[in-house]
Amino acid sequence: MKALVYHGDHNISLEERAVPNIQKPTDVIIKMIKTTICGTDLGIYKGKNPEIADGRILGHEGVGIIEEVGESVRQFKKGDKVIISCITSCGSCEYCKKQLYSHCKDGGWILGYMIDGTQADYVRVPHADNSLFKIPDTISDEIAVLLSDILPTGHEIGVQYGNVKPGDTIAIVGAGPVGMSVLLTAQFYSPSTIIMVDMDENRLALAKELGATHTINSGVENPIDAIFKISEEGVDVAIEAVGIPQTWDVCQKIVRPGGHIANVGVHGKKVDFEIQQLWIKNLTITTGLVNTNTTPMLIKAVASNKFDLSKLITHHFDLSEIEKAYEVFLNGSTEKAMKIIIDA
Amino acid sequence: MKALVYHGDHNISLEERAVPNIQKPTDVIIKMIKTTICGTDLGIYKGKNPEIADGRILGHEGVGIIEEVGESVRQFKKGDKVIISCITSCGSCEYCKKQLYSHCKDGGWILGYMIDGTQADYVRVPHADNSLFKIPDTISDEIAVLLSDILPTGHEIGVQYGNVKPGDTIAIVGAGPVGMSVLLTAQFYSPSTIIMVDMDENRLALAKELGATHTINSGVENPIDAIFKISEEGVDVAIEAVGIPQTWDVCQKIVRPGGHIANVGVHGKKVDFEIQQLWIKNLTITTGLVNTNTTPMLIKAVASNKFDLSKLITHHFDLSEIEKAYEVFLNGSTEKAMKIIIDA
Repeated sequence: MKALVYHGDHNISLEERAVPNIQKPTDVIIKMIKTTICGTDLGIYKGKNPEIADGRILGHEGVGIIEEVGESVRQFKKGDKVIISCITSCGSCEYCKKQLYSHCKDGGWILGYMIDGTQADYVRVPHADNSLFKIPDTISDEIAVLLSDILPTGHEIGVQYGNVKPGDTIAIVGAGPVGMSVLLTAQFYSPSTIIMVDMDENRLALAKELGATHTINSGVENPIDAIFKISEEGVDVAIEAVGIPQTWDVCQKIVRPGGHIANVGVHGKKVDFEIQQLWIKNLTITTGLVNTNTTPMLIKAVASNKFDLSKLITHHFDLSEIEKAYEVFLNGSTEKAMKIIIDA
Repeated sequence: MKALVYHGDHNISLEERAVPNIQKPTDVIIKMIKTTICGTDLGIYKGKNPEIADGRILGHEGVGIIEEVGESVRQFKKGDKVIISCITSCGSCEYCKKQLYSHCKDGGWILGYMIDGTQADYVRVPHADNSLFKIPDTISDEIAVLLSDILPTGHEIGVQYGNVKPGDTIAIVGAGPVGMSVLLTAQFYSPSTIIMVDMDENRLALAKELGATHTINSGVENPIDAIFKISEEGVDVAIEAVGIPQTWDVCQKIVRPGGHIANVGVHGKKVDFEIQQLWIKNLTITTGLVNTNTTPMLIKAVASNKFDLSKLITHHFDLSEIEKAYEVFLNGSTEKAMKIIIDA
């Protein structure tokens, strides 16, 4: 089969690999239909994760058809079309029993990281009963791919952890695919004001289409001043969806007393926490990797057309062109790329 | 009357001042029975709060008898013995309606800060209906002083914000009066393991008496290593009760995935937030100034002898000796001082 293989910093290539086999009775083998590239995959490409083994097949998102099931799998059978959760979970460890699937002691984020992933013709998924979701016919294959990671990440780590409530003023800092997922899923909870901050005018224009009430181009104006002009007391919820010190800093400076900062961004460096100002503000700051515990709810919401996800998909490539797709996603801004769908 | 007056950095003195008068119909005038000195007062003495006006009477804790009531006060009458909350709250602004009394738009922490405080023979308390609590006969005057600030601070900002639950492993970093209040009130929620960290053996010995299951002298051993020896996955809740970068750092390094860091300490400097490690850990970090919204509950708990607070009181002085009391509290460790009661 074809697979995108990691060989270290700035070194990935599409190669021929053997089709995976069932290794444990809880495994399934899936023939991929569609996959995508995550910002995390770009981080891996750029050398941020030297812990990954040479030869690892990348990718932790996708949709496919079950080809083979291990003998203890009960929820799925050959021929089922499924969403592959970016989080693998055993369902029975201490963390799984708290729905902290991201910290499953025999799972968590392992696909395309600790075990071979989804940017291939086939993938082996462990703990299939807890790590896959069936797709209703009303959800297209490419939209379903967005339910592997970005939509639950935005919803759980941005919106739920940030405790977005009716009437709230919220700011989302970063209008990438996850920031857009925050924007879409925040609207379940009816905030009154949704401010999107980014440096890319195309992304800000899309944010406006998708429900942002205000947009701020942080390359043009100081986002902190601009936010206090919109909401003089600051925001109820600030959602960090980039993962760099500058965007964290915006969030800690715009949140009002009693407010929330929900960090969604994947950070590579420590940040300054201005606790000498913030100790007194009764803030709640959250961090987290998605648990995908709300994916069933999100599938129902998407199936009932609660929002239009199609605008998040900007490019299509065949798996044979995936190296080109990485290049396009690396130049996201000039290529106007948001989410890229790869056909397997 | 006698009053302890602030005149700037390292400059306080006991002086004669006029007895305060009712200024607004919601005020009361209280004849003080007992007051105390808070760590925050030491901070003021050391010059941490240059925003305080020269001539301000310090102190935000205490117990007294109502001497005079403003004409719109309904809950209290002359002769009532009351606990003065460290937080003054109007009860009707946006923050008060959310029980964020600490951010009351016409109150918050103002006593001994923005208006004259309790280290005096008399004090004027604004918004009396929302800022005082009657004392049951079963609580002694000096114990009642602990209900002005330290007990609700430990309970609300440490234990409640930290979400201490039955069976949890918790660590309290800092065994001062507030850390001890965390220790006592945490036991309402039945954590299984309570680790107290401090550099003072006397305080650690007292923590053991008051319910700590483990103590760590961070002057003798590395507290992070010691905590992982006690709980190999880290702690469910880390409570910062000092307010310096080193103790914050211990907290961020000992908390397990899905855990909480409750910052109670008053910080004067920013801290490093190791978000490059912690973004993935599904943490909740809280900060805050006490709201005193749980003071009525704490009064009931103290009245029914749920815990012994008397051991937190180590020294007694008369108001005429308050300058000496500040000196003793400044040398807390050598003087073995915890909470100092001042008789007015």
